[in-house]
Amino acid sequence: MPAAFPSSVPTIPTAPLTARIRDALRAIVGEKGLIEDEHGMQPYVTDWRGLLVGGAGAVVRPGSTEEVSKVVRLCHQHGVAIVPQGGNTGLMGGATPWPAHTGILLSLGRMNRVFDVDPVGYAMTVEAGCVLQTLQETASQHDRFLPLSLGAQGSCMIGGNLSTNAGGVQVLRYGNARNLVLGLEVVLPNGDVWDGLRALKKDNTGYDLKHLFMGAEGTLGIITKAVLKLWPAPKDICTAWLAVRDPSAALEILSEAHAASEDNVGSCELMSRSAIDMILRHIPGVQDPLRADTPWYLLLEWSSARARRDGTEGMSEKMEQFLADQLEAGRVLDAAIGQSVGQSRNMWRIREGAAAASRAEGPGLSYDVSVAISKIPDFIDKGLKAVLDILPSIRPYPLGHIGDGNLHFSFMGPVGMDQQTLNQYTAAITRAVNDLVTSMGGSISAEHGIGIDKLDELSHYRSKTELDIMRTIKRALDPQNIMNPGKVLRV
Amino acid sequence: MPAAFPSSVPTIPTAPLTARIRDALRAIVGEKGLIEDEHGMQPYVTDWRGLLVGGAGAVVRPGSTEEVSKVVRLCHQHGVAIVPQGGNTGLMGGATPWPAHTGILLSLGRMNRVFDVDPVGYAMTVEAGCVLQTLQETASQHDRFLPLSLGAQGSCMIGGNLSTNAGGVQVLRYGNARNLVLGLEVVLPNGDVWDGLRALKKDNTGYDLKHLFMGAEGTLGIITKAVLKLWPAPKDICTAWLAVRDPSAALEILSEAHAASEDNVGSCELMSRSAIDMILRHIPGVQDPLRADTPWYLLLEWSSARARRDGTEGMSEKMEQFLADQLEAGRVLDAAIGQSVGQSRNMWRIREGAAAASRAEGPGLSYDVSVAISKIPDFIDKGLKAVLDILPSIRPYPLGHIGDGNLHFSFMGPVGMDQQTLNQYTAAITRAVNDLVTSMGGSISAEHGIGIDKLDELSHYRSKTELDIMRTIKRALDPQNIMNPGKVLRV
Repeated sequence: MPAAFPSSVPTIPTAPLTARIRDALRAIVGEKGLIEDEHGMQPYVTDWRGLLVGGAGAVVRPGSTEEVSKVVRLCHQHGVAIVPQGGNTGLMGGATPWPAHTGILLSLGRMNRVFDVDPVGYAMTVEAGCVLQTLQETASQHDRFLPLSLGAQGSCMIGGNLSTNAGGVQVLRYGNARNLVLGLEVVLPNGDVWDGLRALKKDNTGYDLKHLFMGAEGTLGIITKAVLKLWPAPKDICTAWLAVRDPSAALEILSEAHAASEDNVGSCELMSRSAIDMILRHIPGVQDPLRADTPWYLLLEWSSARARRDGTEGMSEKMEQFLADQLEAGRVLDAAIGQSVGQSRNMWRIREGAAAASRAEGPGLSYDVSVAISKIPDFIDKGLKAVLDILPSIRPYPLGHIGDGNLHFSFMGPVGMDQQTLNQYTAAITRAVNDLVTSMGGSISAEHGIGIDKLDELSHYRSKTELDIMRTIKRALDPQNIMNPGKVLRV
Repeated sequence: MPAAFPSSVPTIPTAPLTARIRDALRAIVGEKGLIEDEHGMQPYVTDWRGLLVGGAGAVVRPGSTEEVSKVVRLCHQHGVAIVPQGGNTGLMGGATPWPAHTGILLSLGRMNRVFDVDPVGYAMTVEAGCVLQTLQETASQHDRFLPLSLGAQGSCMIGGNLSTNAGGVQVLRYGNARNLVLGLEVVLPNGDVWDGLRALKKDNTGYDLKHLFMGAEGTLGIITKAVLKLWPAPKDICTAWLAVRDPSAALEILSEAHAASEDNVGSCELMSRSAIDMILRHIPGVQDPLRADTPWYLLLEWSSARARRDGTEGMSEKMEQFLADQLEAGRVLDAAIGQSVGQSRNMWRIREGAAAASRAEGPGLSYDVSVAISKIPDFIDKGLKAVLDILPSIRPYPLGHIGDGNLHFSFMGPVGMDQQTLNQYTAAITRAVNDLVTSMGGSISAEHGIGIDKLDELSHYRSKTELDIMRTIKRALDPQNIMNPGKVLRV
């Protein structure tokens, strides 16, 4: 992984915070909303991986949309650049300022109100600084389900999730973060507030602006509120762990699972034996659900909003029948169905333990890529070969959201190799992986975004036409380039 | 309904087609791709309702993306305006030129190839001029389902469906047209081709451009190809016809239907008794499924991709149990379940007969509006009162996609009143309906778009901030305003 800022710094506006601007900021957000000392600012300007440490003239923490609007208007008047930030859990440095940044870091963390939960209309109106897990719990208290679910949910904030169009383990069924949104409120680079906070499933009145701001990583404006869609709470969940013949079989299993589950496939996560072994080495208390000696596994979860009734078929009966058919067809070699919440939880702990285990294991590399679902087996074959050609002793442990065509194509460094030595191979491996992804019509950043880390890769791999459209939009909406400058695009 | 062009004509570029440009067009698309005589052009410049007749220097029918690109580049060089058109079935005049238009009408109808169907990856790559019903059938031949379904499906084309973000009767479960798309290819106003034809479920690499072109009604570029998502083909469908207590009960029924059907609600269409009676009067061979004397009905359809197996619960058993519970709760007064394909088809013929029946009935008015789902009952009460206050003898027949918060809020003129007399009330009624919709946070065009018909209403009801963002984007991407000028926005 790139462990530092790209060497070529993009043009970013450098208007500093004068004493007058600081006074004006204080007048808007009050003392409690302004952090100016280095120590206080440090957690905000450091990305959570600890890899990037940026600069800032001040951290500003507004308490309302009105305050955000006033702060942005002030910055706009003085050409002061703004880095918006939610829970600061991004993986690409999108919420971390460049070291040369002398403007403000605008944290949404104080704006954490839930305004409305509408269980009949399956919608919820919230402020950008709400922590994702809190929103999941709020929905649950109303017997509803907010499907967005990812590792950082205890600290990431919904505004950041939407700005990065977060993915996670429920995308297969419910879509990316952008699919969970009915309406948005956004503060524009000139301080104007766009009130698109409509709770409408259908609205064909001009350009769809909300989809433009989602995934823009704060470069076109600051998301301050959202109307989120809700779903019925799952009541009957069946989690299974399958040893599968190979990734092709995994795809065929998924393809047939849609119908067999009556369109109730919730998650379908591919794991390699090497990933599982690494996780078992490092995550205490986790059990291997199947002692099989085969390289590929699938965590398959089906869930229904209908509670089981006696005498009717529940999810686990459907799953049992399905797995019997798949064993018969030779796609599944062995399988275990979670017979208790504890057993199902254990399967999920394996899947979710990958990030922590890889940190404990030592130096490594990981690529968050996607291809068309049906190309996954071919990508795995060719990708492993390309990387092993460069560094034969590297230890692959691929895993990922196979139902989304999204692999975390991951590698532990060779046994005994230190980070510095591994770094010598990183550029070549990254290029090989991304060249392959691109040649297969895939994406070099399936869910983690661009931020700072992939700025140069985006400009290398996307067509001039595509980059031109993006730049044209950025320049039109933020002509001063004050909104999260030097992220996503070099303008 | 507005029966003519708005009196105030927007600024549209007027560069005429010179003989040299005509020769250049002919060199690109050949004789068969160029229509220059008035008679030949007439079907293209007339909107399908027959209400609007526009002008054009020529109709150009390219056979490939490359030809579209060359034609647009030529027009861009000479400031010639372009009106893109698919099946010409839009309801708002979006594909009809203004009378003063002297540029070209670009028809996508010759571009109707299906390039790829990927059943395992649940995706299909198609050209813009494919007729929707042909694509539905193609998907079906691969045991897959393309859910977009609407009245004009026998002649509308997928490029137009995506450009207008079409709705229809499957939105509740599958989303609007934009939700069915993985990737797009678009010819930009300068003739450049944006290749965003990626078959990816996840791709967080910069701004989401596809959502910008979808719903833009051809004002930002011409969609030439798309990768569409497919779903498992439905195998077990249950259609029911319910007499319900009132619209509030309909919402509660829907809210509980999600769980009871295991998230398999396909459609939920509200019908008024007066709508049903009108349809029974005019559509031959249609039977009333329930002889109830109550004002509100619901067409509820559940469908599953799992074929029924003996001894297991199918959709109709689940529906029966559910309707028994709802009768018990007093929300459903009486109900009929379709016991055969013919009975189910009859229910759908009633729902789909509304448009034809209203034309046969005589003069009328209809508004395609949406509000948050939970506000539908309140909207119906207040909306009926507001309209009846203006014209007490008007005959309401509301119906619509209640699960989407989308009503076709429709009225037959008073018995014996001619169109001209009704027209005298139209402006006041339209204003009353749209004011109410707006005051409730709703949309004045839920699925039909803006086109020409609602140009002035959009600019009246949307905030200056929102219109400014749209205009900024339009001017940035199409600075000459040659791409479908005078639609959606006055630039």
